Amino acid sequence: MTDSKRVIGVLGGMGPEATILFMQKVVQAVQASDDADHVPLIVDNNTQVPSRIKALIEGTGVDPAPTLAGMAKHLETAGARALVMPCNTAHNYQAQIRNAVGIPFLSMVDLTAEHIASIAPGTRVGILASPAVRMTGIYQNPLSARELKTVYSRDEDRILSSIKALKVSAHDALARENVHLAAAELESEGCEVLLVGCTEFSLLADDLKQRFRIVDSLDVLVEAAVSFSLSTAAHGAAQNLTSVGDQRP
Amino acid sequence: MTDSKRVIGVLGGMGPEATILFMQKVVQAVQASDDADHVPLIVDNNTQVPSRIKALIEGTGVDPAPTLAGMAKHLETAGARALVMPCNTAHNYQAQIRNAVGIPFLSMVDLTAEHIASIAPGTRVGILASPAVRMTGIYQNPLSARELKTVYSRDEDRILSSIKALKVSAHDALARENVHLAAAELESEGCEVLLVGCTEFSLLADDLKQRFRIVDSLDVLVEAAVSFSLSTAAHGAAQNLTSVGDQRP
Repeated sequence: MTDSKRVIGVLGGMGPEATILFMQKVVQAVQASDDADHVPLIVDNNTQVPSRIKALIEGTGVDPAPTLAGMAKHLETAGARALVMPCNTAHNYQAQIRNAVGIPFLSMVDLTAEHIASIAPGTRVGILASPAVRMTGIYQNPLSARELKTVYSRDEDRILSSIKALKVSAHDALARENVHLAAAELESEGCEVLLVGCTEFSLLADDLKQRFRIVDSLDVLVEAAVSFSLSTAAHGAAQNLTSVGDQRP
Repeated sequence: MTDSKRVIGVLGGMGPEATILFMQKVVQAVQASDDADHVPLIVDNNTQVPSRIKALIEGTGVDPAPTLAGMAKHLETAGARALVMPCNTAHNYQAQIRNAVGIPFLSMVDLTAEHIASIAPGTRVGILASPAVRMTGIYQNPLSARELKTVYSRDEDRILSSIKALKVSAHDALARENVHLAAAELESEGCEVLLVGCTEFSLLADDLKQRFRIVDSLDVLVEAAVSFSLSTAAHGAAQNLTSVGDQRP
């Protein structure tokens, strides 16, 4: 392992396709002439994390926090210098993850809120995400703190069934259509920016970008991870990035 | 982590696109209705493993074996129950990897040789792989032991430059054309089966399958990994799979 690239630990598997998409975007973000130019990642593609939907929406499930904290510790032990988690809903447990480790956690939700505040201050932001994201305030809090208004899709059953369908197949046609309908509804309610706040919906973001002004939280996370890994002015850059991630409303 | 699915450790990053392709194929190989149905993986996507091409062909590089053995140990410690490595050339170091751990190493090269012997016994096998694969006998030995004849592409510079180009971009048009030319040459020399023995070429295997009789070593490895993970009759299945992997010529 060279000193010039820092290893990023990935709390993954929620779902595995979103984790793979994150990894692909990290590869694409680097101008490489050989393997060694790419960002080193250690990925715990743990498909057995207790369901966030069951724990947060259905209220029947096991608490995922101890599993996530354990994954974070193992990734730190294995050599990760910062952690990322390509699943928005699981950010409900980001405090427990931060408490488990001594390395920075690059928060997808805080970094995304910061990014939207910088490119579209004071706007209404439409949230394309799991109902669990609304219920837990994962985006509400960091967006409100930056004077951004938050609008959710009204038909939460449609959204939730689309997430479940996309976890089965990223090519599910009905799910894709329903996500487009939800996006159009949010736009008609005056949202100038739509936040893709569910990594299952990131699987369709290229389509959505053709038609709507989209900020995909997964893209924001990829940029932060690559920047952290490739930064040679190690400590300064780490602090820059984590100051965004650590900023609480 | 449930007991019903065993974690597979992946020695990855050689290159990262091949590792991602392995992960995608593992996802596609499982009929899933939720994240938890998928195979749990811990992936050391280590882009900083010393170059196998430099060490084996150019003779100028650092020995990759200690790095690979260290990765294997870390994956075992992190909870992997078996190891895989989606890079054929790096199998030159499989003995050092096996010696470093107490869990099975599912050898892509031994499993692939076994598979070809079962579907096409006694044939001439054309090898689409790095010159390092010929020089080290990685496939020659297990194929000869099973009475299969081995034929290599004559223009090794063309092959090597294609691998390097595909590491930069999996869509490189000239590299794709050159791999097809090499495949056609091997077929014209009487090879009934072409073995894709380079995970960079696995990136083009879908194209090659349209025209040639292909066995892609990456597909063989995916099947073994999924079967090992999902097998509930744990010890019996482990021995079945690793008896193939451990079989030496």
